Amino acid sequence: MATPIDFYFDFSSPYGYFAAELIEGLAVKHGREVHWHPVLLGVIFKATGAIPLLLVPLKGDYAKHDLKRFARLHDLPFAMPSNFPIAGQHASRAVLHVQQQDPQLATQLAQALYRAFFVNDQNIGESEVVLQVAHALGLNTEDLAAGMHSEAVKNMLRDETAAAQARGVFGSPFVIVDDEPFWGVDHLPMLDEWLKRGGF
Amino acid sequence: MATPIDFYFDFSSPYGYFAAELIEGLAVKHGREVHWHPVLLGVIFKATGAIPLLLVPLKGDYAKHDLKRFARLHDLPFAMPSNFPIAGQHASRAVLHVQQQDPQLATQLAQALYRAFFVNDQNIGESEVVLQVAHALGLNTEDLAAGMHSEAVKNMLRDETAAAQARGVFGSPFVIVDDEPFWGVDHLPMLDEWLKRGGF
Repeated sequence: MATPIDFYFDFSSPYGYFAAELIEGLAVKHGREVHWHPVLLGVIFKATGAIPLLLVPLKGDYAKHDLKRFARLHDLPFAMPSNFPIAGQHASRAVLHVQQQDPQLATQLAQALYRAFFVNDQNIGESEVVLQVAHALGLNTEDLAAGMHSEAVKNMLRDETAAAQARGVFGSPFVIVDDEPFWGVDHLPMLDEWLKRGGF
Repeated sequence: MATPIDFYFDFSSPYGYFAAELIEGLAVKHGREVHWHPVLLGVIFKATGAIPLLLVPLKGDYAKHDLKRFARLHDLPFAMPSNFPIAGQHASRAVLHVQQQDPQLATQLAQALYRAFFVNDQNIGESEVVLQVAHALGLNTEDLAAGMHSEAVKNMLRDETAAAQARGVFGSPFVIVDDEPFWGVDHLPMLDEWLKRGGF
């Protein structure tokens, strides 16, 4: 079995949302599995001194334009949320909690949360909204609420973020496969080529 | 006649070198001309507070790895220069001077200067090296030396850089076509698609 694709993302990252829509199709094409790693990029940015993309002068305005254009090109629904950025800890913890029981369902939840935020303008920074999205997927929200607020899952997110940072993850989306790092949704075509050729 | 592709680049930009190798082929495919605009990104960075990519923590190391990988994927020769970064004013002024007489020859000079720097490790930050590269192309180096150091050409570079900044150019390579901005060599496939479809 080929090694999995490690997919790192922050729920506040619009390019992360695009990658979340595209990564599974790419993986299936090459017989790979995707391991989904929600991380808190804010924690990593504090360590590296980086600024969220959309707040960078000029580059931020360019990105706002580029995001809409990328969505049109790939036929993905997209609207900048009215509350932005949000803190992704509740959404991230929900995904990590569900992952322990059912990784595939956790992937569906991650995609549903991203769509809630970047398509339907729901504020997934709030735990109630995270639970509503989970409920619509048929999840047991009582179990999920307890899990999301448990120390174990809080630690899990802390550990995931630290592990990502230790592997050199500095942005979202970020993919590592066979120890090869790919940053940004613009690098998915290169990842595709990498998997096709088995490296180059 | 379709409007030209405005191609902005800094001679110290390795991704700019890659774009310089790829942009003419892309333009020909869509019946467009390329207008080459050497600019001094350092001047723009001073205004925007940006840091040169290769000096950014983590991102810089990633970029060094990504550059070599990009070169392999596109079969382009590439080696990080031992003197890096350099000040691109002499190289830029040489190109602007030649452009007044022969735009096509100026494009060849720009590509030759980029290759001298990113393939043959020649320090194009020095005016003598710029003249050597021009000489190898058969240019009149006496005329070029006088032009490069003239107030008229110095002002031209200042104006080009200011005009680029006014159009929102904040990095290298940067392309504007039909008022649509494309930043980074990773965006050339999107530019290709844009020109094919006539926008999207």
